[in-house]
Amino acid sequence: MAIRTLHGTIEISSSGFNDIIDITSGVRQFVRENRLKEGQLLVFINGSTAAISTIEYEPGLLKDLPEMMDKIAPMKRRYHHDDTWHDGNGYAHLRSTLTGTSFTVPVIDGELVLGTWQQIILIDFDNSSRHRSVVLQFVGEVDDSVK
Amino acid sequence: MAIRTLHGTIEISSSGFNDIIDITSGVRQFVRENRLKEGQLLVFINGSTAAISTIEYEPGLLKDLPEMMDKIAPMKRRYHHDDTWHDGNGYAHLRSTLTGTSFTVPVIDGELVLGTWQQIILIDFDNSSRHRSVVLQFVGEVDDSVK
Amino acid sequence: MAIRTLHGTIEISSSGFNDIIDITSGVRQFVRENRLKEGQLLVFINGSTAAISTIEYEPGLLKDLPEMMDKIAPMKRRYHHDDTWHDGNGYAHLRSTLTGTSFTVPVIDGELVLGTWQQIILIDFDNSSRHRSVVLQFVGEVDDSVK
Repeated sequence: MAIRTLHGTIEISSSGFNDIIDITSGVRQFVRENRLKEGQLLVFINGSTAAISTIEYEPGLLKDLPEMMDKIAPMKRRYHHDDTWHDGNGYAHLRSTLTGTSFTVPVIDGELVLGTWQQIILIDFDNSSRHRSVVLQFVGEVDDSVK
Repeated sequence: MAIRTLHGTIEISSSGFNDIIDITSGVRQFVRENRLKEGQLLVFINGSTAAISTIEYEPGLLKDLPEMMDKIAPMKRRYHHDDTWHDGNGYAHLRSTLTGTSFTVPVIDGELVLGTWQQIILIDFDNSSRHRSVVLQFVGEVDDSVK
Repeated sequence: MAIRTLHGTIEISSSGFNDIIDITSGVRQFVRENRLKEGQLLVFINGSTAAISTIEYEPGLLKDLPEMMDKIAPMKRRYHHDDTWHDGNGYAHLRSTLTGTSFTVPVIDGELVLGTWQQIILIDFDNSSRHRSVVLQFVGEVDDSVK
């Protein structure tokens, strides 16, 4: 089986304000539709006010995570960033830098390797609703046998 | 030299409660046994209460890191997560999301690229002892010459 | 187009003390000079007192980020790490572990995938000026057509 590279996107409408969106099913669909067998799948958000990470996607943690972030980089504080742009989302930039915009998940035997209670999430920290294109980039073996 | 993909695991018994385990030698053994030459080695933990990162593995920082984490997401606080599961490990989930479960290290000339005082660590934040399987996934050149 | 692996470095003189350096142009130059077409480009710092991440590189955030870090892991606190080495940079190690030393960016159609206001940064948290070699490692398609 040859090594190949493939990419795609997952289109998301987010509400912003620390909206946490479970994108696992979209990532899994990309794996299946492209018959990915084994390799590294990069999940990337090209923006500076959002992040990609994992969480157990349940209602309690969806409240806990923004509360923790509000201790680290409070929404209501004044930031030097606002002196530049006056858009009031300095907190969102800081949370993005800290959490990270790049996440890589292994694909083995045609399946995403994830814990049972581990979902891949886009967090949109920005202070407005946004359209987000999550970029998927795979390098590894693809099953070409039936195509 | 052809590009290939390979995977393996490192089996870990952790004590939980922010146990920090140096997995560098296990990762290095994977590189040598599989004669990896150049590429990207993904180190991944499939769970939502642990993380993979790097640190200078010395006794002082092994105390400092949990102390910093306890300011960010205190163990003794009450979390909404506990309303769902009553398992008291909300803090561990938050620390995992923030620190990250996915870490990629370059392999060049058959060696891991790491600083002299930079070790690869599994941090098990959970509030119990656990078995953990760290997943290793390599994409790149492998030396097949002597096999 | 065959899959290949390639590496390089970006040499940086940093001032330390949370110096934030925009390395996007160096990364982009690596993509163009090597005619990278599609794949995953790993940006890695081999050290335990620095980090790689992204930010909107503007003067306000360059002040906000160190201020946030100083709440998480204050520079002026005493750390157990200092009992081991007496070098006063315990804070820098903790910030590195939390922010991460490994960042992967997609390359698609011969271009880095990044937001318009998203730059790739090296953050040198250490308490002295330092020479840093940022490691670049690519796995993917390279355009060999004109070479």
